Amino acid sequence: MSIDTADLPDPDDRPTPNDNPGWLSEDELRFVRGRLPIVYIEAVPVRLDSLGRITEVGLLLRSTPEGVMTRSLIAGRVRFGETLREALFRHLENDLGPMAFPQMPVSPVPTQVAEYFPMPGVSAFVDERQHAVSLVYVVPVTGSCDPRQDALEVSWMSPEEALAVDTLDEFHGGRGQLLRQTLAAHGC
Amino acid sequence: MSIDTADLPDPDDRPTPNDNPGWLSEDELRFVRGRLPIVYIEAVPVRLDSLGRITEVGLLLRSTPEGVMTRSLIAGRVRFGETLREALFRHLENDLGPMAFPQMPVSPVPTQVAEYFPMPGVSAFVDERQHAVSLVYVVPVTGSCDPRQDALEVSWMSPEEALAVDTLDEFHGGRGQLLRQTLAAHGC
Amino acid sequence: MSIDTADLPDPDDRPTPNDNPGWLSEDELRFVRGRLPIVYIEAVPVRLDSLGRITEVGLLLRSTPEGVMTRSLIAGRVRFGETLREALFRHLENDLGPMAFPQMPVSPVPTQVAEYFPMPGVSAFVDERQHAVSLVYVVPVTGSCDPRQDALEVSWMSPEEALAVDTLDEFHGGRGQLLRQTLAAHGC
Amino acid sequence: MSIDTADLPDPDDRPTPNDNPGWLSEDELRFVRGRLPIVYIEAVPVRLDSLGRITEVGLLLRSTPEGVMTRSLIAGRVRFGETLREALFRHLENDLGPMAFPQMPVSPVPTQVAEYFPMPGVSAFVDERQHAVSLVYVVPVTGSCDPRQDALEVSWMSPEEALAVDTLDEFHGGRGQLLRQTLAAHGC
Repeated sequence: MSIDTADLPDPDDRPTPNDNPGWLSEDELRFVRGRLPIVYIEAVPVRLDSLGRITEVGLLLRSTPEGVMTRSLIAGRVRFGETLREALFRHLENDLGPMAFPQMPVSPVPTQVAEYFPMPGVSAFVDERQHAVSLVYVVPVTGSCDPRQDALEVSWMSPEEALAVDTLDEFHGGRGQLLRQTLAAHGC
Repeated sequence: MSIDTADLPDPDDRPTPNDNPGWLSEDELRFVRGRLPIVYIEAVPVRLDSLGRITEVGLLLRSTPEGVMTRSLIAGRVRFGETLREALFRHLENDLGPMAFPQMPVSPVPTQVAEYFPMPGVSAFVDERQHAVSLVYVVPVTGSCDPRQDALEVSWMSPEEALAVDTLDEFHGGRGQLLRQTLAAHGC
Repeated sequence: MSIDTADLPDPDDRPTPNDNPGWLSEDELRFVRGRLPIVYIEAVPVRLDSLGRITEVGLLLRSTPEGVMTRSLIAGRVRFGETLREALFRHLENDLGPMAFPQMPVSPVPTQVAEYFPMPGVSAFVDERQHAVSLVYVVPVTGSCDPRQDALEVSWMSPEEALAVDTLDEFHGGRGQLLRQTLAAHGC
Repeated sequence: MSIDTADLPDPDDRPTPNDNPGWLSEDELRFVRGRLPIVYIEAVPVRLDSLGRITEVGLLLRSTPEGVMTRSLIAGRVRFGETLREALFRHLENDLGPMAFPQMPVSPVPTQVAEYFPMPGVSAFVDERQHAVSLVYVVPVTGSCDPRQDALEVSWMSPEEALAVDTLDEFHGGRGQLLRQTLAAHGC
């Protein structure tokens, strides 16, 4: 099963139905996921050398509700009324902690656009829960990463290690291929 | 009031609730528009010279339900189960006719991303009906354009004319600025 | 040894020293190649389906002066006074013939930038002859390709075949990696 | 007359003919400038808010040898053997000082490509000295800027002020239009 940030409890920033129209109950989320594409952001955290070349890639290691370990990118839904930048920052902070100091992208144009479908074969990417249109960014981080969610670890590796077949195979739903494409667009 | 392709009757391609989960009734559309961002595509049709330089920009002139004439880009919703390319092609065909022969983009990464909010001030773009995340493409067309919808005309003009303040002012919701940004990214 | 379009005789478009300051004698070319970076364009010709997805990739097969067969991309120098678009079109026509009908890119911003150095290790790309800064484009072609130069063949293959390790190994100087990166940026 | 960093004395990093083949004497520079396109980088320094939006644009104010004040971007030649990133960093440091702490771009693909020709009318950009192909980057800076060259000042202004017609008119050779295009690609 797939999993992303939006499925895990949001530590201290949980909106309630009363004060945020973008909050969706379980039933509402199930309804909309079967009726229209959901806007997502995804992020690949990287560390750079002084000239801007990627030296390390941060991959999330997380446990699904069934206890299976799986690699993932930072990913989550964009809420009603929230800008892409706000959603990107919120999910970066949720998954990497408040001391990661991400360098937010100057342009909202993403490096890649990934289209996830619940049915396989429509595109290279599958998400059993929904049709999602995901804007994918590479985000340099300069601070220390400390995931705020128990299910989560960040492991840093060289681009070569991150792109090894064994590592890419630990991603689900085609996200290994997405990581490969995204890093390739940046010269890796 | 804003208007886009999705609001006009779809000439011969209208899905029904029974065979397409992506079709939304008026009530359902109203519900989702107030609860989550809607995925849109927008397109700027252009004509190119033999070296690929933009010689003409195609702007739609359409009449709102109130009878007000307004300029617009090609725009419309991406349906559940539909790829971005399919949505882009469908809206191009609806607005330009079947003989426009658009050159579809090789990459799904858009030229610009426009975020529309129902409330002004969140971003540069306003859509009273919804929060929309719109992927904007520049699409060369090589055939003849013949809008299939009565309310619609295509006028072709030079990039200089399209970018004149008077022309940009005929767009609503910040779409004049979006046109300017999109053409600027292509050297106009 | 590497080879590119600029090294092969230019069939019918050869400028002479008298009428084109951008023409360089052998001696002059050798001098400038050791003193400053040379501007190059490279192109990956592709065929698209009706929605713009890459169905085939065109790879050049050419024979070096030593008679070794090697794969290559379309590549060549930008001359003094020539725009990038003119250089791109000229090299496309030289290598694919006058009936290829390339769809020239709307934007001069390339998909990738490759930096070739005569000394290995500076970047991923090596060209023994020179330091070249190469702007790389993916160019859809709609006509028939018929190389005008004897040493040359175009073979069309699926993206999967083009990206197979065996195929990529037939490129020199890191150009296999460049092809991989360029196609990855377009979702392959 | 145009002017850029490469024309001003390089404070403490001046290579000599003996140890750097990329160094060109005045005569050699004049020769190559008339015979082939020269690779340039240009940079627009910006300051960002915490979400990555541009809040300020840094424009250089410099005095030509004739004592005329003119606005310019950071610009300079890429030397033989130097990577684009090294050239970008070197020119940023020369023009903004060692404490600017630029955030180097993750990708070498530029925001814009500007083609300068000595003769007007070939493109929108003119440089009397040469045919230059310039890769243009937007570079966030986080430190304090202190130009190391006497002729130079950095003034910071809002995107609106930077894009005002009066400001753009203070640039030469079409660089005002280039600034406009580059900022537009980033949503300004």
